[in-house]
Amino acid sequence: MEELGLIEDGAVAVSGKKIVAVGKTKDVLAKVKIDRKTKIINSEDKVVLPGFVDCHTHPIFGATREEEFELRVKGKTYEEIAKAGGGIRSSVRSLRELSKAELIELALPRLDRFLSFGTTTIEAKSGYGLSLKDEIKILEVIKKLDQIHPLDLIPTFLGAHEIPDEYIDKREEYIDFLINQMIPEVAKRKLALFCDVFCEKNVFSLEESKKIMETAKRYGLKPRLHADQLSSLGGAELAGEVGAISADHLEYISDSGIEKMKECGTIAVLLPGSVFGLGKDNYPPARKMINKGLPVALATDFNPGSSFTESMPIILSLACLKMKLTPAEAITAATVNSAYAIDRGDSIGSLEKGKKADMVIWDIKNYKEIPYHYGVNLVDKVIKNGEMIR
Amino acid sequence: MEELGLIEDGAVAVSGKKIVAVGKTKDVLAKVKIDRKTKIINSEDKVVLPGFVDCHTHPIFGATREEEFELRVKGKTYEEIAKAGGGIRSSVRSLRELSKAELIELALPRLDRFLSFGTTTIEAKSGYGLSLKDEIKILEVIKKLDQIHPLDLIPTFLGAHEIPDEYIDKREEYIDFLINQMIPEVAKRKLALFCDVFCEKNVFSLEESKKIMETAKRYGLKPRLHADQLSSLGGAELAGEVGAISADHLEYISDSGIEKMKECGTIAVLLPGSVFGLGKDNYPPARKMINKGLPVALATDFNPGSSFTESMPIILSLACLKMKLTPAEAITAATVNSAYAIDRGDSIGSLEKGKKADMVIWDIKNYKEIPYHYGVNLVDKVIKNGEMIR
Repeated sequence: MEELGLIEDGAVAVSGKKIVAVGKTKDVLAKVKIDRKTKIINSEDKVVLPGFVDCHTHPIFGATREEEFELRVKGKTYEEIAKAGGGIRSSVRSLRELSKAELIELALPRLDRFLSFGTTTIEAKSGYGLSLKDEIKILEVIKKLDQIHPLDLIPTFLGAHEIPDEYIDKREEYIDFLINQMIPEVAKRKLALFCDVFCEKNVFSLEESKKIMETAKRYGLKPRLHADQLSSLGGAELAGEVGAISADHLEYISDSGIEKMKECGTIAVLLPGSVFGLGKDNYPPARKMINKGLPVALATDFNPGSSFTESMPIILSLACLKMKLTPAEAITAATVNSAYAIDRGDSIGSLEKGKKADMVIWDIKNYKEIPYHYGVNLVDKVIKNGEMIR
Repeated sequence: MEELGLIEDGAVAVSGKKIVAVGKTKDVLAKVKIDRKTKIINSEDKVVLPGFVDCHTHPIFGATREEEFELRVKGKTYEEIAKAGGGIRSSVRSLRELSKAELIELALPRLDRFLSFGTTTIEAKSGYGLSLKDEIKILEVIKKLDQIHPLDLIPTFLGAHEIPDEYIDKREEYIDFLINQMIPEVAKRKLALFCDVFCEKNVFSLEESKKIMETAKRYGLKPRLHADQLSSLGGAELAGEVGAISADHLEYISDSGIEKMKECGTIAVLLPGSVFGLGKDNYPPARKMINKGLPVALATDFNPGSSFTESMPIILSLACLKMKLTPAEAITAATVNSAYAIDRGDSIGSLEKGKKADMVIWDIKNYKEIPYHYGVNLVDKVIKNGEMIR
């Protein structure tokens, strides 16, 4: 993860939507034909990196939750707020009242902001609908946004985000409904590539999570898991066992969880923004994971509750300052590792011949400035699918 | 500090560089004449606040120090890096090699960035020169930047930032030089309003700091103090005793320091960015200060070592999440309290008749979104001296 393969005096040649050559400028120039129609973007004294891949976001929601932010500042815990009807359930109530058109309208400036901070692909979860109709609505919104906006959105079904209000006293019925109706319908309509579960005390147990993930697999949805965020439940071990592509959060991962994930090829998606946004300090043991050879990815966890940011750069700052990743490790975690965490390692996440031309030109001389110069936006230009869009 | 005096359906009327009326839109319209030349900025569904006043910055420097950032991530302390020739001394070496024109060129994009995040006035310290010539050079750069850039820069002389290399074995001589030549010369040339001292173990002792501040007062420079940042030295008590306008940092302030500052009217300038940027968690006891009635201000501490950010919004996020200020308290601390901390409480820091028309229109519906939606930029427009500049 420390090896970025930096090229000084480098160039990237693009044809159509793809990268056709990368290397020292003179070598690239020797390989490609330049004519009058060739567009040249001079990036002297700048840094060019692959676009960030933000592999864990919840971008489709209605109302923001700044009042909960203030309550937490005043001492309430996330769990207390959730029990009092706030948290995910309040976002569910808000989302259900909105139409697809309204949700698209709300999402567009968020997607613009992701792009403005150098992110070119996001994983996008449903999970604020929690009824068949509303989950389908969100996934259709994600599909539409992917079509109309330059940012790529990779859809994940998260019907197992919480037990909705109307099932609160009959959780088993909700899980049956999820398994027998929602997952099959989402799969049939090809609206998601992944199926995620929030495995946690008071949310979905290990056993329930396993049942949901196994069902998802049968329907062709790859499982991923919110694991060990608020307590050490054994979610990491379960994610490995089920063959999940990633286990996310992992604030309370055990040593055996690290071993199991490594053994099974499950990627650790770390979300320091949700620790920060909750005003806490229990960052996941990233150094231990990296030292043990477990691949680590980074994401914003963009959502209106625990982590309200579209900025990958601030996540890199948190990763370096709070989890002691080096700047190079943080870049790897936010690009190529994150691409693998959403099964796109072959097409995005690095500047390589044949990959998508998703690149960001940074107005800096050293990539280390991205985490170091925190809380600001150092992006100069964003190139998506070979086109300069910002 | 909790009382923002919010006005719903409000308006601000400006004439020339000043605010001439503030209140409910209908009341403002009743007070002022509107004609064809009146420019109206519709800010419906937006929030209008006074521009932030960033009352502690070090904006004039040469090389950035991202390599030190990486060393800290890897485990070196700030003090170890300073002892090995890094830290402030490395910035001094870099700055001395640069001309005024070069320093201005480097500073301009920084000033643009301050403005872009809604800051309309900064306090700007010298302190990377540490020779008469180089300190004067910095203060002249600050003066020039204040003239040519819309941002207002309020100059502070910080010759007592560190003992420079050439005096390392004769610190008393440096202090004599400071007192007998630098302070008088800076005062004579009217290049600074304030005189700051870094009072800390291995930097300037309590006794030395007192001597420097008392001299500054005699020459008409108001004293302020870097106090109790890395250890509980009694800097807060000294700041109060000398009648400093502010004591800044205060991570290790004692209870008697809080009492003394309150008694003497010294404002507490808190710099959570430098705790964050150093990867530490020893935030100052802001709640205790506020609860005891000590006025608290916020600033970025923008500098290339410990806190490399021009963004007041991320400082507000840190203030709320790490020091438990409410969003309203954080806004007060970053506007009117900060204005008082640089002796400008009568002219900036709030939207009041007669004050400068330094205002920011935010693309949000609730001011609480500023700290809540962290790491991004929600500024819609910046109005400086009555003119829309961004």
